[in-house]
Amino acid sequence: MKTRAAVAWKAGEPLTIETVDLQGPKFGEVLVEIKATGICHTDYYTLSGADPEGLFPAILGHEGAGIVVDVGPGVTSLKKGDHVIPLYTPECRQCKFCLSRKTNLCQLIRGTQGKGLMPDATSRFSIDGQPILHYMGTSTFSNHTVVPEIALAKIREDAPFDKVCYIGCGVTTGIGAVIFTAKVEAGANVVVFGLGGIGLNVIQGAKMVGADKIIGVDLNPAREAMARQFGMTHFINPKDVPNVVDAIVQLTDGGADYSFECIGNTKVMRDALECTHKGWGRSIIIGVAEAGAEISTRPFQLVTGRKWEGSAFGGARGRTDVPRIVDWYMDGKINIDDLITHKLKLEDINKGFELMKSGESIRAVVEF
Amino acid sequence: MKTRAAVAWKAGEPLTIETVDLQGPKFGEVLVEIKATGICHTDYYTLSGADPEGLFPAILGHEGAGIVVDVGPGVTSLKKGDHVIPLYTPECRQCKFCLSRKTNLCQLIRGTQGKGLMPDATSRFSIDGQPILHYMGTSTFSNHTVVPEIALAKIREDAPFDKVCYIGCGVTTGIGAVIFTAKVEAGANVVVFGLGGIGLNVIQGAKMVGADKIIGVDLNPAREAMARQFGMTHFINPKDVPNVVDAIVQLTDGGADYSFECIGNTKVMRDALECTHKGWGRSIIIGVAEAGAEISTRPFQLVTGRKWEGSAFGGARGRTDVPRIVDWYMDGKINIDDLITHKLKLEDINKGFELMKSGESIRAVVEF
Repeated sequence: MKTRAAVAWKAGEPLTIETVDLQGPKFGEVLVEIKATGICHTDYYTLSGADPEGLFPAILGHEGAGIVVDVGPGVTSLKKGDHVIPLYTPECRQCKFCLSRKTNLCQLIRGTQGKGLMPDATSRFSIDGQPILHYMGTSTFSNHTVVPEIALAKIREDAPFDKVCYIGCGVTTGIGAVIFTAKVEAGANVVVFGLGGIGLNVIQGAKMVGADKIIGVDLNPAREAMARQFGMTHFINPKDVPNVVDAIVQLTDGGADYSFECIGNTKVMRDALECTHKGWGRSIIIGVAEAGAEISTRPFQLVTGRKWEGSAFGGARGRTDVPRIVDWYMDGKINIDDLITHKLKLEDINKGFELMKSGESIRAVVEF
Repeated sequence: MKTRAAVAWKAGEPLTIETVDLQGPKFGEVLVEIKATGICHTDYYTLSGADPEGLFPAILGHEGAGIVVDVGPGVTSLKKGDHVIPLYTPECRQCKFCLSRKTNLCQLIRGTQGKGLMPDATSRFSIDGQPILHYMGTSTFSNHTVVPEIALAKIREDAPFDKVCYIGCGVTTGIGAVIFTAKVEAGANVVVFGLGGIGLNVIQGAKMVGADKIIGVDLNPAREAMARQFGMTHFINPKDVPNVVDAIVQLTDGGADYSFECIGNTKVMRDALECTHKGWGRSIIIGVAEAGAEISTRPFQLVTGRKWEGSAFGGARGRTDVPRIVDWYMDGKINIDDLITHKLKLEDINKGFELMKSGESIRAVVEF
C-alpha cells in the first residue's frame, strides 16, 4: 500500500513529506493507522546527527496512537479496529528480561530494532524500491506503520488519540519514573531538575502519589507557573541561589528523598545525586546525555547511603502499564491536555521541531 | 584510672605503648575493658596521614570486644560484667536516621565522634594532663576505653573475644553488605572485587544466602585457595584476561546480579558497576577510596537499569544486628577462625600493621 510519511533523509536536514510504499504485516506484525503523534526530543536528537546510533534514511516518530488496520499471521492479542499505542520498549513477556520481574527492558527484538528493521531483519518501508528504515520500532511520523504485536499496547476506544499519543513516551517516562522506577511514597520530598515535557510529568506523578515537597529546578523562570499548576510546591532557579545543592538540602532538612534528572546534562546529574538525603536518598537519571559524556562523584556519596539509578520509559511494561496510564488520564487523575501546547498537520512537522528547540512548546502533536 | 594503650602521636609514625589516664564514664557512657581488638585497614589509613579527617594524638582501634567494668549515670541497657562489642556506627534508635528504617547511619553523636570526642565534647583520655583523642568513638587499642551506651552491642557471654572482635568491623561490613544492604537472594550471581578481609566475608555472606555463582577477582593468585574455602566458585585474575568486565559478562550470561567493590579503587568501582546485568544489576561500593578520588561512568549504564550504591558497616544496625552475627558465628554458619591469621600482644601492634601492609595477614588480632 501507499501511505504518507515525513522522511528523514539525512542528519541535520528538515523532514520531507513523501508518499511511501508500505508492505503489509508479516508474521507477528500489525498494520496500524497512526491518528496522532507527538514530537519528542529524542526524534530531534536523532535527526540532528548527534546520536551515534542514528541511521538514515528513516521515518522517525515514537509517540503515537492509532487503530489496527490489519494483522499478520500468528497475531492473537490484537484485531482490526483495536485502538493501540506503539511501544519503543516492547513487552514480549517471555524473554529473560520480561521474566526477571526486575526490569521493563524487553530485549526480544532489540537487535533488529536498533538497526531500523523489523524482527525478520527487513524494512516494510520503501520509496521507488529503496528501503527506508524504521525508527525505534515505531515510525509514527507515517500515517500507516507496521509494528510487531509485542510492541503495541491495546487501549480503550474512548481515549482521544491526540492526547493519549503522549503516553507513548513523555507521560509514561515521567510519571512512570516516579511510580514504577522509584516507587515514591506519600510524604516523600522530591526534586525535579528540568521542567519540560518529562519534568512536568514527574511533578504530576509525585503529586499523584502524595509527595510532600515537590521542588522544581529550571533556568527558565517561565516554567514556574505551569509547574505549580501540575503540583510543584517550591521553585528554584539556579541563577538565584549561590549553590543549588545547598539550597535543596536546606529546604528539605538534609536532602531530598528522591531526585529526578530530566535534562540530559551530566553536571546536573551530579547535583541531582548530591542533593539527596544521606542514608537513603535516591537519584533517578531520566535525561539522555550527549554521546561520550560521563557522570562522576565521590564514592563517599554512595557509601553514605545515596543510590544512583536510571529509568527508561518510566520503568513501565508497555502492554501492561500503558493501558493503566490511559485509564488514569480518562479518570482525571493526570493532566495531559495542558501539556499539549501545539497541534500541527503533517506538512508542518518541521515547525514542531522549531517550537521544541525554542522552548516555546511543551508538546506539539501532529494529527493525520 | 590508669590503663595501657597504643598511642598514635602523629601521622606516619609507629604507635607507642603508653600508660594513659582514663576518666570514668559520664552520663550515658560505659567503661569497657577491651579483651581483644583487630587491626583494620582504616586504622592504617588514618595512621598513614592519608585520611584528611585524621586527628592526633589519638588512640586508634575500632574492632574490639570486651567486658563492661562500670556504667555512668543514665545507662539502662548495660551493667557491669556484660560482654560487648564497641560500635563505630552507633544505634540510638531515636534520631531521624534510626527512625527512618532506611539506613543504619545513626547520626546522634556524629559531630563529636568525628572530632575524636565523647558526646559532651571532651576526651576521657590524657597523658600528663594532655588530652589524647578518641577514634571512631571506640579506641579499642586501649586496654580500657569509655564508649557511649548507644555505641555498644551486648553479646552472649560464651563468644570468644579473640574471634568476635572481628565482628566489630570486617565481618559485619562484608556479610552485612550482602544480607542487609544488597539483600542478595538465593540463586543470584555475585562478583567480589578484592579478596582481603572484607571480600572474603562478602563471599561467605553470599554463600550463606545461597548465591549461585560467586566470582572472586584479585590480582594476587595466593588469595584463590582461601576464597574457594569460603565459597568462591570462580576466580578471575585480571592479569589473565583481556578485559575483566567482558570475562564476567560471559561467565554470567549477561552480567552479575550483584557486585561488591572491597578495595577502594575508583577504577575497579567502575568495572564493578559495568560488569553487572543490564536491567537489574546492582553494584555496592564498600572500599574506601583515597581522598578526592572520583568514580565515573556513562549515564547510559544507569538508564539501562544498573544501580550504583554503597554500604557502610554492612548496613547493619549495630546493637540489633551485631548480636545476631555473633550467634551466626557460634552456630557455625560463618567462619571467623580461619580469617584470623595472626595473634599479637599489644607491644607488637606495629608488627600487625606490617603484616597487613604486606598482605601476609587476613586479620591480625591483639589480645590484652
